Amino acid sequence: MELDVVFTAQEVDRALVQEKNAVVIDVLRATTTMISSLAYGCKTIFPVTEPEEGQGLLTKALAQGELRANYILGGERGGVLIPGYDLGNSPFEYRTEIIKGKNLIFCTTNGTLAINKAKFAKRLFLGALVNGKAMANKLNQFTDSIVVVCAGTKGHFTLEDVLAAGLIIHELLILNPGIELSDRAHASLALYRYHQAELVKAVSLSRHAKVLVSLGFEKDIAYCAQRSVFDFVPIYKDGQITLS
Amino acid sequence: MELDVVFTAQEVDRALVQEKNAVVIDVLRATTTMISSLAYGCKTIFPVTEPEEGQGLLTKALAQGELRANYILGGERGGVLIPGYDLGNSPFEYRTEIIKGKNLIFCTTNGTLAINKAKFAKRLFLGALVNGKAMANKLNQFTDSIVVVCAGTKGHFTLEDVLAAGLIIHELLILNPGIELSDRAHASLALYRYHQAELVKAVSLSRHAKVLVSLGFEKDIAYCAQRSVFDFVPIYKDGQITLS
Repeated sequence: MELDVVFTAQEVDRALVQEKNAVVIDVLRATTTMISSLAYGCKTIFPVTEPEEGQGLLTKALAQGELRANYILGGERGGVLIPGYDLGNSPFEYRTEIIKGKNLIFCTTNGTLAINKAKFAKRLFLGALVNGKAMANKLNQFTDSIVVVCAGTKGHFTLEDVLAAGLIIHELLILNPGIELSDRAHASLALYRYHQAELVKAVSLSRHAKVLVSLGFEKDIAYCAQRSVFDFVPIYKDGQITLS
Repeated sequence: MELDVVFTAQEVDRALVQEKNAVVIDVLRATTTMISSLAYGCKTIFPVTEPEEGQGLLTKALAQGELRANYILGGERGGVLIPGYDLGNSPFEYRTEIIKGKNLIFCTTNGTLAINKAKFAKRLFLGALVNGKAMANKLNQFTDSIVVVCAGTKGHFTLEDVLAAGLIIHELLILNPGIELSDRAHASLALYRYHQAELVKAVSLSRHAKVLVSLGFEKDIAYCAQRSVFDFVPIYKDGQITLS
């Protein structure tokens, strides 16, 4: 079994992911927030790439008789709430009293782009630091090659995503030491292992973390840096993300 | 002072390097071999991107009355000797009895490409594991921002180049702890620090190292994985590489 890591959503194309199991990671904050939302009872997530696409999806659902109260429009542009949307991209906005039993239409700059670019994979899972161990357990159920897609930030290498890739590889090697790692996978693993004793500190080193702190989201960093606190793996299929 | 790392020669353009000090790294084997050649007495290295360009440079020198015996055509395509060239890309081919006092016209797949792409930098130095500490000392003489260009392998992330970038950053932080590191610089540093006790083993993990072993260049891996054994930094200027 081979495992590769890509560092930005922009590098992903159909040839890269097809016939493989893909994991999309956007630690700050899209995949962490989506995983957390599902943990707090969200029914289904519809990831979209553009804000208008999310609005269109909602309009269509309402036209089919769905209740507005059953839908939440969430996400960000530039790290903050999208005009006309209900909620932003902080995991703290998506707790039980808000999200339980709801459908979430979710649009972010990097995370949902990465999902849409990787959707031709054999199976597509959502990963983050918060479900690293569960992801390793899931991937180990299959013999397919793996590509871990770090969403990155607007085409740039993003430390915390690669850190989470490293966590998944670290956990997977415990289950299956024979996995063949690419150079990028080896580098991701070393990044995780070097920083594993202090994940919050490691995530805080990243440029994107500094931007979020400047926007007032400091507590999101510590939340997103939690290791393997959720024991499930969301799966994407036909435009929908659910508990696998 | 800011420090960024790029992972492939292909990402380099004029805007990325200008007004900065740039370091080009191709551990296996171009920059290691060039540094080693200069250590063993090579006078000047002329890096070229294409084999024909090297032939043309030699023809021009001979037409100007230079002696053929004073020139060596060296480098590789696919890891092996270029047809019509004198020597390959192994550092073991460039020892005192061969290279002392000679001019070396040098053409490799990734390393000399990276040099030519980075030549618009304010200053352009050649780095590798073998001169990591000397590179840190050199860079610390200036206040300019730094971009470390890992040559990579045909556009792919290459472990050993990023490992050397990490060594340089590690040594530079000892001299100047205030340097501002990009996400890629932090990742390079972690890669080095995680593997620093066993550099030969770390370099051997890379895909490119495995290719070289399959071509019979196993001893080159250990040579290129030596840490800071040369205490100088080659500089590129106007098409020529010399001791700085």
